[in-house]
Amino acid sequence: MKCTICGDVAAINMPQHRLRLCEAHLQEWVPRMAQRAIDKYGLFTRDERILVAVSGGKDSLSLWDILIRLGYETEGLYIHLGIDHEGYSDESEERVRAFSRAHDDAPFRVVNLEETYGQGIPTLAHDRRRSRPCSVCGLVKRHIMNRVAYEGGYGAIATGHNLDDEAAVLLQNTLHWQAGYLRRQAPLLPASHPRLARKVKPLVHLYERETAAYALVCGLDYIEEECPYSADATTILYKELLSRLEGRSPGAKMQFYLQFLQAKGQGLFAGGAEAEPPLNECTRCGQPTSAEGLCAFCRLWEPRE
Amino acid sequence: MKCTICGDVAAINMPQHRLRLCEAHLQEWVPRMAQRAIDKYGLFTRDERILVAVSGGKDSLSLWDILIRLGYETEGLYIHLGIDHEGYSDESEERVRAFSRAHDDAPFRVVNLEETYGQGIPTLAHDRRRSRPCSVCGLVKRHIMNRVAYEGGYGAIATGHNLDDEAAVLLQNTLHWQAGYLRRQAPLLPASHPRLARKVKPLVHLYERETAAYALVCGLDYIEEECPYSADATTILYKELLSRLEGRSPGAKMQFYLQFLQAKGQGLFAGGAEAEPPLNECTRCGQPTSAEGLCAFCRLWEPRE
Repeated sequence: MKCTICGDVAAINMPQHRLRLCEAHLQEWVPRMAQRAIDKYGLFTRDERILVAVSGGKDSLSLWDILIRLGYETEGLYIHLGIDHEGYSDESEERVRAFSRAHDDAPFRVVNLEETYGQGIPTLAHDRRRSRPCSVCGLVKRHIMNRVAYEGGYGAIATGHNLDDEAAVLLQNTLHWQAGYLRRQAPLLPASHPRLARKVKPLVHLYERETAAYALVCGLDYIEEECPYSADATTILYKELLSRLEGRSPGAKMQFYLQFLQAKGQGLFAGGAEAEPPLNECTRCGQPTSAEGLCAFCRLWEPRE
Repeated sequence: MKCTICGDVAAINMPQHRLRLCEAHLQEWVPRMAQRAIDKYGLFTRDERILVAVSGGKDSLSLWDILIRLGYETEGLYIHLGIDHEGYSDESEERVRAFSRAHDDAPFRVVNLEETYGQGIPTLAHDRRRSRPCSVCGLVKRHIMNRVAYEGGYGAIATGHNLDDEAAVLLQNTLHWQAGYLRRQAPLLPASHPRLARKVKPLVHLYERETAAYALVCGLDYIEEECPYSADATTILYKELLSRLEGRSPGAKMQFYLQFLQAKGQGLFAGGAEAEPPLNECTRCGQPTSAEGLCAFCRLWEPRE
């Protein structure tokens, strides 16, 4: 198998693009795909400082690497969730530190849940009697990302969601016809309030296997373990179903997602939208909330009976 | 396994309904589900005469049986497509005749393509250089159904599409975000012109295995072979993917379809619709067409160079 561009040994075959690339050309092509998404969806400009949400995994570290290569001004944000299982959170933080060292001490900050708020996700979820901690975890991460972005004056928060992630979420939203989610799902979630940052996903055009290959050929040392709580059988099934379609018809996954964005752009979901509820400010942290009084994040830390 | 209603030996287990039914209760339940769909979507009234499109297969013969049991005034319409492979069209017609005999000589009519128009589907598609005859066949059947319904003054044309059929088409339309198809897909397709009959699908709430079980316990003698041209790998794959979802979460297929209808009813697809093209009348047959001059059906029979 030979690189379509130079004829060298190819490192990856991408039938959906009718393209095979060697290591060197993959390292050029992936950032170009990200740049194309940044431009196409107007994710951010070169004047803005970008907060990159990094977990220590292949997608977020690839994203950070790509944005640095493309010359954007970035800072990493690692949220230490206090997940002890096989040292998951500590190990992940170490990968972020190693990435920074390997990239001319790229700036990053760590928010450690236990140190800052007194509890990590496992005990927090347990105390709040949640059977699975994922919803609490999502809430906590959103709050912290918004706070750090606001306090640091960042233009946008960039996350490493890839095409497989987005297509699986889209399939889930579609199978249940979640109108609100379908209307919102996009590579760019605008800031609906001065204290909520714009959220952007520069890797939405890249398949998971492409970001994985990129991380590999760039020698990024990422954490391979999935979060011990993330064994979400539903998402795995959706990804598997989409892979079946992809196997039969290369590009099917990409078309599903891109044609969705296109149809939405042409107004497919424009009808019947309900008005957004008015936003109040949380009486403790000041972040906008649809609740009265405390926001959902601040309520998490309230004493229980 | 026992019937949920009477405790007799159950003939079918329907986990999505948390229901197991014996033969006798299945024969009551299936027509009730069809009646519910007729009422819910306002498919037709008891004053209307219904033209039932029958192919000789389990779905359309079950539909005809159900509508007769429910006391509707029906006539069967069998279109003999001239498919010779293992006597497919002749065999199918024989099942329709046998059904009629077994149902107090229920009225039906046959339109034989070769006799009426001079050619059956296989040679017609071949002469028109279509690699697969299905699109020609669909066009021909729609034209004939509309013509017979118009000439006979029928209120609606009923077809045997079941939930599996509709869910598979929906998945296909969704994976490609076919806005026009998504807006139109429904148990009732209104008559957009006096010469085009309303199309209705009373079996949309019933799974394929439920209509199959119904046909079996009612002793309907249907043709088990699929049309020799119908080996559509894509539809089979979509049905398989939906069955995977159903297996993991009973009712998933039904929810996918019903929540789609609900979301549409709430205006999800109401935005961005393009105006329908104005309809002309075909200069030969008089049926409405978006073309100038001859409609697509009449053009089929024009001499070729």
